[in-house]
Amino acid sequence: MITVTIIGNGNVATHLTNAFSKTKNVNATQVNSRELKAVPQADVTLIAVSDDAIAEVSSKIKNSFVVHTSGSVSLNSLQNKTRKGVFYMLQTFSKDKEVNFSEVPFCLETENEGDKKLLESLAKSIGKKIYSISSEQRKVLHVAAVFVNNFTNHMYKTGNDICEEYNVPFEILQPLIKETAQKIETISPIEAQTGPAVRNDKKTIKNHLDLLNKKQQKIYKTITKSIRNGN
Amino acid sequence: MITVTIIGNGNVATHLTNAFSKTKNVNATQVNSRELKAVPQADVTLIAVSDDAIAEVSSKIKNSFVVHTSGSVSLNSLQNKTRKGVFYMLQTFSKDKEVNFSEVPFCLETENEGDKKLLESLAKSIGKKIYSISSEQRKVLHVAAVFVNNFTNHMYKTGNDICEEYNVPFEILQPLIKETAQKIETISPIEAQTGPAVRNDKKTIKNHLDLLNKKQQKIYKTITKSIRNGN
Repeated sequence: MITVTIIGNGNVATHLTNAFSKTKNVNATQVNSRELKAVPQADVTLIAVSDDAIAEVSSKIKNSFVVHTSGSVSLNSLQNKTRKGVFYMLQTFSKDKEVNFSEVPFCLETENEGDKKLLESLAKSIGKKIYSISSEQRKVLHVAAVFVNNFTNHMYKTGNDICEEYNVPFEILQPLIKETAQKIETISPIEAQTGPAVRNDKKTIKNHLDLLNKKQQKIYKTITKSIRNGN
Repeated sequence: MITVTIIGNGNVATHLTNAFSKTKNVNATQVNSRELKAVPQADVTLIAVSDDAIAEVSSKIKNSFVVHTSGSVSLNSLQNKTRKGVFYMLQTFSKDKEVNFSEVPFCLETENEGDKKLLESLAKSIGKKIYSISSEQRKVLHVAAVFVNNFTNHMYKTGNDICEEYNVPFEILQPLIKETAQKIETISPIEAQTGPAVRNDKKTIKNHLDLLNKKQQKIYKTITKSIRNGN
């Protein structure tokens, strides 16, 4: 049995607590980050709070092994006096959408091998994909994740806006969105690139710009130029 | 039995010919667009050539019903003297990747109801999702598709570049890419937006910019600004 205290009440803390509650070998307790006076002792204390709060919250915890869940904060930002670690799940968590943890990559970092094994056991209790990732590598993954997740979602949002403006159902684009994501499981993104930018089809590019508002044009031009230059 | 002549030898022409060859009620023949002297007569003549060549190719065809497959060319760009139509599949086609036509939206346009029924029968022989889409609506869909497909793929490509530069395996990002695409089947892109831009997390944004080259920074800044402004 591994005992876990999870500090935080955001999406990550809540989804994790729910997932652990369904396992047999993990006993997890969720604690509000504003009630740090009585944090239950545990084998692993997971801090799932906003990045800015990690240092302060960790400085107040006396438990033996304190671990944060952030993609962009280094292990050494933890301010507890005891052992430190990182338990970063590279996935997007929404309040209302269930998480399939068997598909989530767990990126683990610890100060020693024993702690690594402990976090691996914890990750394996709910997941399958376990990686050993340093603070430096995690920073890189986090930037890359902003492109493939946050920025990609903004492309969806812009596509949605264009459809709404002209009364075309956005659902027609759903299969294309799915296929675009699936394609790069078998071929590299550079091979998968299609469209007017890579073909240098100036006539189509001009027609597209004519349909867009100024802010959409700015994005269209910036990305088209980047595709043209092979960046 | 519907007879079809498919003109072209690109991905769309080849995938379509293969798909029709597996059906019982469609008899399709593929013709190279450079051999237009002997185009077989057919109920439907599909022109699947590059956008720029559609007008010229169609002007040389005497068949009774001539249809192009482009997302960005209007019905009236066809130069045949007979009936005209559009049979646009809103999906990305790659040479080496099989197409699941039951997932492909068929966007149809014709000059009369009889021809619409004919193209619907043709689409239903290999697919399920059939839409009636005007030339104006198709233009809008095509621009939106550039955002959700071409530009999204460029986000994947940039993420891949960043990982390669710092020797982090890109495969760790695959589940996130898949989840990002799936998420918007149940919630809207604006609700699905997460990350430092929407949180206005300036510290993380600065850290990210420090890891990027100038060209990546340009994209990062443009999209971050657009997310901030709610565009």
